[in-house]
Amino acid sequence: MSKVAVLGAGSWGTALSIVLADNGHDVRLWTHRKEQADEINATYRNEKYLDADIPEQIKSFYELEKAVDDVSAVIMVTPTKAIRDVCKQLNKILKHKPVIIHASKGIEPGSLKRVSQVICEEMNQYNYEDITVLSGPSHAEEVGKRQPTTVTVSSVTGSNAEFAQDLFINKSFRVYTSTDMVGIELGGALKNIIALGAGISDGLGYGDNAKSALITRGLAEITRLGASLGASPLTFLGLPGVGDLIVTCTSPHSRNWRAGNMLGKGYKLDEVLEQMGMVVEGVRTTKAAHQFAKEQQIEMPITEGLYQILFNEKTPKEVVEQLMRRDKREEMDDISAFLSAKFPQ
Amino acid sequence: MSKVAVLGAGSWGTALSIVLADNGHDVRLWTHRKEQADEINATYRNEKYLDADIPEQIKSFYELEKAVDDVSAVIMVTPTKAIRDVCKQLNKILKHKPVIIHASKGIEPGSLKRVSQVICEEMNQYNYEDITVLSGPSHAEEVGKRQPTTVTVSSVTGSNAEFAQDLFINKSFRVYTSTDMVGIELGGALKNIIALGAGISDGLGYGDNAKSALITRGLAEITRLGASLGASPLTFLGLPGVGDLIVTCTSPHSRNWRAGNMLGKGYKLDEVLEQMGMVVEGVRTTKAAHQFAKEQQIEMPITEGLYQILFNEKTPKEVVEQLMRRDKREEMDDISAFLSAKFPQ
Repeated sequence: MSKVAVLGAGSWGTALSIVLADNGHDVRLWTHRKEQADEINATYRNEKYLDADIPEQIKSFYELEKAVDDVSAVIMVTPTKAIRDVCKQLNKILKHKPVIIHASKGIEPGSLKRVSQVICEEMNQYNYEDITVLSGPSHAEEVGKRQPTTVTVSSVTGSNAEFAQDLFINKSFRVYTSTDMVGIELGGALKNIIALGAGISDGLGYGDNAKSALITRGLAEITRLGASLGASPLTFLGLPGVGDLIVTCTSPHSRNWRAGNMLGKGYKLDEVLEQMGMVVEGVRTTKAAHQFAKEQQIEMPITEGLYQILFNEKTPKEVVEQLMRRDKREEMDDISAFLSAKFPQ
Repeated sequence: MSKVAVLGAGSWGTALSIVLADNGHDVRLWTHRKEQADEINATYRNEKYLDADIPEQIKSFYELEKAVDDVSAVIMVTPTKAIRDVCKQLNKILKHKPVIIHASKGIEPGSLKRVSQVICEEMNQYNYEDITVLSGPSHAEEVGKRQPTTVTVSSVTGSNAEFAQDLFINKSFRVYTSTDMVGIELGGALKNIIALGAGISDGLGYGDNAKSALITRGLAEITRLGASLGASPLTFLGLPGVGDLIVTCTSPHSRNWRAGNMLGKGYKLDEVLEQMGMVVEGVRTTKAAHQFAKEQQIEMPITEGLYQILFNEKTPKEVVEQLMRRDKREEMDDISAFLSAKFPQ
């Protein structure tokens, strides 16, 4: 059994800690807020974030140095906004070289970097091939209840992903491996854009037909963007693509869906963010994807529409009408053109 | 404006009739039951099947000959079980050659034929290239309410699909075209297998994580089967694939999901079918796909599990546990092996 640190005691960090504890590991759950660490250690609950009893093998720490001391793996589950800062601290603190696995879903606006790239930029000891990502269709609430869940872990060198697979796998948490790290990270990040869109559609009072069309066409456009960034389009067909998209777009558990839902009901972005009180990754990611699509001249009509709603005061209704009224066309023209380029006959 | 016949006055036939009537066409909605035709003509309602007011351009007929007299298109929306019989009758009746579009989702067990193949087998005047299929993520209830919906029409020769596109397209019903008729028909049929599985997962009390994993892995296996039958794998990424799968698997509107849900709660197949009182296409399709997978040695673990539940008295719980406990593996090994064969580098 290993000693591991989980950095970030939000819903997902707490749920992953429970999986690790169930597997017999000694888990150190880090939060920067002392009162949260105290709550976890005193009550074995993390009330604000996850409705689950926390096993005794989990100890919470608010001092980063103590949390990572002597651990064989560090699991990073902070919001993507905080990743750079936490890595800077780790870079000063770490005296050994634990395995790094991250489970944060986002892209850095401006730099357009993925989380793994940010991590190895800030930590001198680590190269890109040292980093592993964990992603997949997984509401923290259900993982906390030990309901069947499947995720994918990925590293450029397969051996790191296999280490992560062995660390996490158990009878209710099934872990696949992949070597398409770019695809796994982008799938997890970009799906939040579509989740915002799905929430808007529901908020407008549209039905399942509209939402599933939006998810499907959204999948096509994030696959297009992903491939242009070096991902395998096949990854978007799998658990961290279609799977995560479904789970995020069809459930009120999802923060991004909830934020979209409020937008669809007519709230302004700042009102939504204030009411949510938690990070809504999709907002940042829409900005990043929009910037990238523009630079690379990639057609992303749904992302463009969302950008207009979020940052240019277009109403959701205007955007939906515009999307429904595009020219008549063949469904697969764009996807197949791009896949044939990727897999020439 | 055209005179068109819609054969089959179930939910979907009625909803498509409404779309056609909204577009100004003169619609003849056929049912073999006189009392249903009388209800529609007298009350402009089809209470048992669709909660919607029926426009005046729709007239219902119970005599097939009168329904198809002088029409420029016949839309077939009967259960797949009835297709052969209706085609036999049409073959005797028709004196002209209207365009045929079908919107029935299934595969014939035994022969393993798609609906378009059955149609041209039974109707002397028609060849395979004469037939068009309409499919996509579309609950009839929402189409009846004019909520935004997108579908795909497909024929081997693009011109028939374009005729169908022009017939149906309007501001709330968006119609794409495709020439992958095999993929469109199989996507629509095979997704019902996975919908049964999704219903079972929900019936067992599992959450969204389990269901989205099942949908994703299910998509991989029906894509595999589809490709071996000549479909383009890309079609399964589109509206009649992923899109239809999402709408069917995540909504209690879906008959196949409802049937699965009852199975998950412990009802036996015959009890379920009796209580439903409507056709559950997924049961027949599971049998057909299982037969095909065996003959062609295609790995379809979810379909196999469902077959065991439906026809061999295995319990849903046993099957799920078996699926979760398969060997550790790379996620994309099977999909990518098969796609590389399809698109060699």
